[in-house]
Amino acid sequence: MSEDTLKKAIKSAQESKNKGGLITNQRDAMAQGLELVDKSAICMLGTIGEDGFPNIKAMLNLRHEGLKKIWFSTNTSSRRVQQLKKDNRACVYYVDEANFKGLMLVGTIEILQDIESRKMLWSEGAEVYYPLGVEDPDYSVLCFTAKQANFYHQLTNLTFEIE
Amino acid sequence: MSEDTLKKAIKSAQESKNKGGLITNQRDAMAQGLELVDKSAICMLGTIGEDGFPNIKAMLNLRHEGLKKIWFSTNTSSRRVQQLKKDNRACVYYVDEANFKGLMLVGTIEILQDIESRKMLWSEGAEVYYPLGVEDPDYSVLCFTAKQANFYHQLTNLTFEIE
Repeated sequence: MSEDTLKKAIKSAQESKNKGGLITNQRDAMAQGLELVDKSAICMLGTIGEDGFPNIKAMLNLRHEGLKKIWFSTNTSSRRVQQLKKDNRACVYYVDEANFKGLMLVGTIEILQDIESRKMLWSEGAEVYYPLGVEDPDYSVLCFTAKQANFYHQLTNLTFEIE
Repeated sequence: MSEDTLKKAIKSAQESKNKGGLITNQRDAMAQGLELVDKSAICMLGTIGEDGFPNIKAMLNLRHEGLKKIWFSTNTSSRRVQQLKKDNRACVYYVDEANFKGLMLVGTIEILQDIESRKMLWSEGAEVYYPLGVEDPDYSVLCFTAKQANFYHQLTNLTFEIE
């Protein structure tokens, strides 16, 4: 796998360098970042483990509001929720593997259990995760609020604040 | 996207629950985890930012030795290397989006610049990243050593030590 992976990446980086189609301004980075968020079925949630080591887990990309807010559905009993209760600093990462693009959003997470938030992310059959239904105490909603973003494309990357 | 994503995930979780094909022992988790690492073109590297927030970036999955060691190629001047010089705690995450599988490896990273390590990950055309060639001071190799793993599949997850 490795040889092919590197050769493909090098070829793509060379083409991109020659074409000069790289992201150089914040407006384009935000637009392409939002496009990536809109089309992604999953994203990666980064948290700080109880031992201080970084942790990553794939999450369903269920709902977002621009690049500022992202909501996740999770089990209250999960390791992630226990970690976030102690340290709510987080990041969310979206990747477009085929086009060598990535968006990292850095911010904080609020753990919600109010009925409106629960209903917002509920779907028929979600009892497979939360057997007691929409009011299951083991059902929590994570609300991520971004403060900063990094957009990666090929050889370039651009950092910007999220207002 | 969100509605479809959740419905697909629920359906897959229900089928998997009914079939009872979930991972329950460490040997299977290690075997399936290794299979995922073997076939992945990219993985996500988690680090701790200078402000203490978790950071994630996609990396090319170039070379590994079982689940214990993973090597990455990167720019010495990159933000990642600066972060790792201050705090070398890291995690590496592999995901199989279609089958709702994920593997998180937690460990530490050593920054290498010796010629053997450089040559090991070098490929023709890699000057697009490191213009001065295999001895470019801006070319570093990251060697990740895992101490613990988490394998996720559908509704289950299993934690085990990496010897």
